[in-house]
Amino acid sequence: MTLQASAPRLVLASSSASRRAVLEGAGLTFSVAAPAVDEAEVKRSATAEGLAPDATALLLAELKAQRIARRDPEALVIGADQLLVCEGRRFDKPADLAQARAHLLALRGRPHSLPTAVVCLRGGRRVWHHLARPRLTMRAFSDAFLDAYVAAEGAALTTTVGAYRLEGPGAHLFAEVTGEHAAILGLPLLPLLEFLRQHGVLLG
Amino acid sequence: MTLQASAPRLVLASSSASRRAVLEGAGLTFSVAAPAVDEAEVKRSATAEGLAPDATALLLAELKAQRIARRDPEALVIGADQLLVCEGRRFDKPADLAQARAHLLALRGRPHSLPTAVVCLRGGRRVWHHLARPRLTMRAFSDAFLDAYVAAEGAALTTTVGAYRLEGPGAHLFAEVTGEHAAILGLPLLPLLEFLRQHGVLLG
Repeated sequence: MTLQASAPRLVLASSSASRRAVLEGAGLTFSVAAPAVDEAEVKRSATAEGLAPDATALLLAELKAQRIARRDPEALVIGADQLLVCEGRRFDKPADLAQARAHLLALRGRPHSLPTAVVCLRGGRRVWHHLARPRLTMRAFSDAFLDAYVAAEGAALTTTVGAYRLEGPGAHLFAEVTGEHAAILGLPLLPLLEFLRQHGVLLG
Repeated sequence: MTLQASAPRLVLASSSASRRAVLEGAGLTFSVAAPAVDEAEVKRSATAEGLAPDATALLLAELKAQRIARRDPEALVIGADQLLVCEGRRFDKPADLAQARAHLLALRGRPHSLPTAVVCLRGGRRVWHHLARPRLTMRAFSDAFLDAYVAAEGAALTTTVGAYRLEGPGAHLFAEVTGEHAAILGLPLLPLLEFLRQHGVLLG
């Protein structure tokens, strides 16, 4: 899109289809590189060291970006990470349908937050970061609803940390949703665009 | 989707592709019927009679639903309408690119609201309504940005009342966005799903 200067090249350091869709929706030209970061191990260490969820999300976003920036120092590398916290308990992406169902039961009728970090690196240095904190409240749905929802969504449930796709049938789960839609999908977009304008990547 | 009971049939009384996409995203089964309502004339009358924007949006949503309900009294008919108000001035869908550009110049650097009404009729009677009021603030973009944006979006600018598609490159226009994403797209979804659950159309 002509709203974008030709340099620097943008690289999204993420294997997330929804983050990619957020940037594509905004008409940005970028490439995607999947960073080899052992997220589960980083989360375990972070939790063991008492790192707060916000700091953990920022650390993971930076680690992913660093992994890619190392082999592409000229690019502006965008890393991102999202956690789910409900009443002090952290949730990880469910491994299977049974775990997804258990997560949804634990989140039912309660508010949770999605600390969502985005970090930009250039020449291996962090040049910008942002942390969004969308808040969502699941309604007190029935067990019958949950059975139907799990059956309808199937394997898609294991692709997100909350076992929901808000842009799809996940909307049926919620009583209330606050925060930037793109941040809920995994990438705070308006703050990122503002940084890219200030950095000369986009027209002001 | 199995989250939905078989009756009543849902009909979306709207020719809006984005409203249709909102309901499809939520996995609902519904048909679409484009209501023949002279919206410009209704808006002129409403303004002449001093009707507030909220009431005008509700009136238009109901008129659209009534037009369809008349020929399909068994269905649950969903009507919707969205207005744009900036500092007391109402904006209509731009007729061409020049008008779209003028709208964007008038909205630049200012907050505006999108009174967004949804009305449900059954058997010709209004059984539910809801009004959302998303608020968006356009940033003080440059003339060079505006030229590039208008060139990039082209005819798509004339398809929405604000000359932007927030789910697309329109994100570049904004400093701040608050309100339900689906409501900004033209159809408040979470309140509608809640009504459909209470009305027995969806699993609770």
